[in-house]
Amino acid sequence: MSDAEQSDSQDNDRSGAESLVQTFVDAGVNVCFANPGTSEMHFVAALDSNPEMRCVLGLFEGVVTGAADGYGRMTGMPAATLTHLGPGLGNGLANVHNAKKARTPMVNVIGDHATFHRKYDAPLTSDVEGVARPMSHWLKVSATADDVANDGAEAVQAALAPPGQVASLILPADTAWNRTTASAAPLPRLQPNPVNTDQVDDVAKALNSGEPCVMLINGILTEERLAMADRVAQATGARVITDTFVSRMHRGAGRAEALRLPYFGEQAADVLAGTKHLILISTQPPITFFAYPDKPNWLTPEGCELHTLVERDGDIDGSLEALVDAVGAQTTPINAVPHVRPDRPIGDLTPETIGVSLAHHFPENAIVVDEGGTCGAGSALSTRTSAPHDWLMLTGGSIGYGMPTATGAAVACPDRQVINLQADGSGMYTLQALWTQARENLNVTTIIFANRKYAILQIEFGRVGAHNPGPKAMSMLDLSNPDLNWVSLAEGMGVAAWRATTLEEFNSALAASLKHQGPSLIEALV
Amino acid sequence: MSDAEQSDSQDNDRSGAESLVQTFVDAGVNVCFANPGTSEMHFVAALDSNPEMRCVLGLFEGVVTGAADGYGRMTGMPAATLTHLGPGLGNGLANVHNAKKARTPMVNVIGDHATFHRKYDAPLTSDVEGVARPMSHWLKVSATADDVANDGAEAVQAALAPPGQVASLILPADTAWNRTTASAAPLPRLQPNPVNTDQVDDVAKALNSGEPCVMLINGILTEERLAMADRVAQATGARVITDTFVSRMHRGAGRAEALRLPYFGEQAADVLAGTKHLILISTQPPITFFAYPDKPNWLTPEGCELHTLVERDGDIDGSLEALVDAVGAQTTPINAVPHVRPDRPIGDLTPETIGVSLAHHFPENAIVVDEGGTCGAGSALSTRTSAPHDWLMLTGGSIGYGMPTATGAAVACPDRQVINLQADGSGMYTLQALWTQARENLNVTTIIFANRKYAILQIEFGRVGAHNPGPKAMSMLDLSNPDLNWVSLAEGMGVAAWRATTLEEFNSALAASLKHQGPSLIEALV
Repeated sequence: MSDAEQSDSQDNDRSGAESLVQTFVDAGVNVCFANPGTSEMHFVAALDSNPEMRCVLGLFEGVVTGAADGYGRMTGMPAATLTHLGPGLGNGLANVHNAKKARTPMVNVIGDHATFHRKYDAPLTSDVEGVARPMSHWLKVSATADDVANDGAEAVQAALAPPGQVASLILPADTAWNRTTASAAPLPRLQPNPVNTDQVDDVAKALNSGEPCVMLINGILTEERLAMADRVAQATGARVITDTFVSRMHRGAGRAEALRLPYFGEQAADVLAGTKHLILISTQPPITFFAYPDKPNWLTPEGCELHTLVERDGDIDGSLEALVDAVGAQTTPINAVPHVRPDRPIGDLTPETIGVSLAHHFPENAIVVDEGGTCGAGSALSTRTSAPHDWLMLTGGSIGYGMPTATGAAVACPDRQVINLQADGSGMYTLQALWTQARENLNVTTIIFANRKYAILQIEFGRVGAHNPGPKAMSMLDLSNPDLNWVSLAEGMGVAAWRATTLEEFNSALAASLKHQGPSLIEALV
Repeated sequence: MSDAEQSDSQDNDRSGAESLVQTFVDAGVNVCFANPGTSEMHFVAALDSNPEMRCVLGLFEGVVTGAADGYGRMTGMPAATLTHLGPGLGNGLANVHNAKKARTPMVNVIGDHATFHRKYDAPLTSDVEGVARPMSHWLKVSATADDVANDGAEAVQAALAPPGQVASLILPADTAWNRTTASAAPLPRLQPNPVNTDQVDDVAKALNSGEPCVMLINGILTEERLAMADRVAQATGARVITDTFVSRMHRGAGRAEALRLPYFGEQAADVLAGTKHLILISTQPPITFFAYPDKPNWLTPEGCELHTLVERDGDIDGSLEALVDAVGAQTTPINAVPHVRPDRPIGDLTPETIGVSLAHHFPENAIVVDEGGTCGAGSALSTRTSAPHDWLMLTGGSIGYGMPTATGAAVACPDRQVINLQADGSGMYTLQALWTQARENLNVTTIIFANRKYAILQIEFGRVGAHNPGPKAMSMLDLSNPDLNWVSLAEGMGVAAWRATTLEEFNSALAASLKHQGPSLIEALV
């Protein structure tokens, strides 16, 4: 018996739920985003038994899981989520999917009926494991209250397995309410697979071949990783390109940067054309987001050789360090981005001028959560040279991640300004996040790009070869009739809001929003 | 080759999606609730190719699936739903669960990546079958465009299998866009299992035993079914009780009625105490909704014998008819509910006085969708003697069904007034339904019972034995801080809205709302 177990077993005879909360806190998991039901009441009660656990309520489960994604991306530690049986988890599944693709550490606690109740077909009975499995890297059902602490420790360990995993623990109600003396000390952190020197040598040889090379990189793109990749690029003439969507990227003045692979396959193919060596760093060979009739979906150019420096679960920093050494780039200076702050823009209100206004007003050390869809590119471009910041993206393609992820990022980093670039169509999936932002008084500025359509689908409609859409089809891609009023929606959830119909109004609203304590929203009619 | 196939095969060389839409229309499925993405664009395009298919956009998938549930309950025919890969279906899963428990006929079309794209781990790749399986009675993945029409016909047949099923058809994008000459005529309706005369005799014997009998009934409780059960009850002294939650019930003046089994187990046990024969009609033995420590979850009294008249997939009408004959109740008059219209109420604004106001203003032939939670009982009580109407309930316990189901019921029955009794907590899960109500100009009156808490959880917290909740636990059950403003939320989605803080204001708002063309909402502060 370990020391921790000895000490914990003194506060014996607690509920399984209390043992789980204590296990989480001991393992460094001290935020729980929750939307509980009756079967989770003992877990809710256990939250009070532990002053070190913070609990944040979401009015919809997609808020809860998306917030845990944002929290995990910013801290590298899992938040817990608490959801109610199969349907409750179902409501949160889309943002669990996004977190799984981001490889965000996350621990989902899903309540279920008491073990002795599951044999009856009660109204809320469902195959909870079946719902959880597709979106979980790790999945377990606690069998008894005595197992809960150990299962919780395993879940945290699984969530922290490099580079991060979704761990889902199903907690039948009686395993939460029964008494137990069990406890569990934190399990050791699993380490990434070590540097593969053969792969490093192979990549270095390709980089030194004089042939066109691209380093394609994904994962948490820290300043340090980008700097190492950039040094290698400066020394060898290779290009550094990121996947179209990465979970988190350090950006801005003074940092090395990487080109982002375009979303549309034709443009991505143009960027990659002529490449002879494609070097994969914590990613896979590039493919298109969707397949289309008569368009290639495999983006590695004909005749281009694929090399893997390091897999997703490998030692990314160590592999990059080894590569820097192997190509002799230790002292190569990075190509640092300059600091440029544009003037307060004048002109029409467009996604591009919104981007310039954002760059003009850009605060220090901001976190940008980008679900701007077709309207987000202008802001990405204009803030390239802004003060250093983090940029979070939609990794799993399931829209409705922006507001929840911004919420979780703000809980993780209370001293930083969060800016949520938000398409209106995507925003409607999980708008309930605004209420949580208001309750927790989070410094989130949400910029709604109100173009009142699913613009990406209007583009894709033609690209998939479905030509000449009729009025019924177009009405499916159109968000007008009636127009959404985001100022009303935000105010309905206690969030201050402004509408901007001109660039001047937007400039003023953005300045006011960034000064505002707590959440606020700007509906920009673009 | 059938005639239908011959005639259809003349319009050859259409897309798989077009063949599916035609198959649906031929089989009587002519409404599609949709929230499409890129992989569904050909299905969207196919909607235009067929003037007989109506398509209704939801801004969130839970709206789409809940609307299909409401539509199916009111028409007995499945609506189609259209959702986008695993995460999109995930967003709709909770209301698919409710529909599955209601045994509502429903055909879900779920887009997936093209078959040749699924081998790559694209951002939106997930185990779509895995997500669909837990909430589907029937599940298939179309393999090629040539299979789609047949698969669609099978899906409709499966959805209509008595008493109704959830059928989910996964449509890889290339099966939708590839050309095909295939078509499929509607498949024959599957019939319910025939009347089991042994079971009828066994039940009749129990009813004639002179011992206390309860007929427990579920399913679509039509006027005719309730009348037959009531005749048997009048003739034999048995009681007729419905499960706590049934999908749809005919209620009101001139009709036979049945007692509703109380939600809380102790109260249900009191109602059933002393019963010697529990007769199951399209239902299962009664159990509690949740299990609790130290409380029974099995509600059949000690020493009570269980009898099954007819299973869920049996001939319910035929079995009841046979039972009426067997007990000689053919000419027994039903105990018809009188028509009583209360005066316009005065006093405080409470769930009970709201119920009286509703009964005072109650329109002819209304459809009530009850997600009033702890606040709904007053309305159920007071409208007992109102003009005949339909009453829809939350069959699967997954909250957030009210607004979507009301939307679908209104699409199904455009000439009837829909009244959605809506708890505020539950309403926040799928509030996006209001936008669809506005777009389709549906006559839905939503009454929000704004008590600003998860009241049921405050009750259940104590019932599960989690005593003395602390401030963190209570904050998880509390919807104030900030208060939701439902008038703002409704207006933000184009729905007229009133706030009522007094009963007089509520009376006026309800009268105005019922006169209003199109959707409207009343936020009642209770």
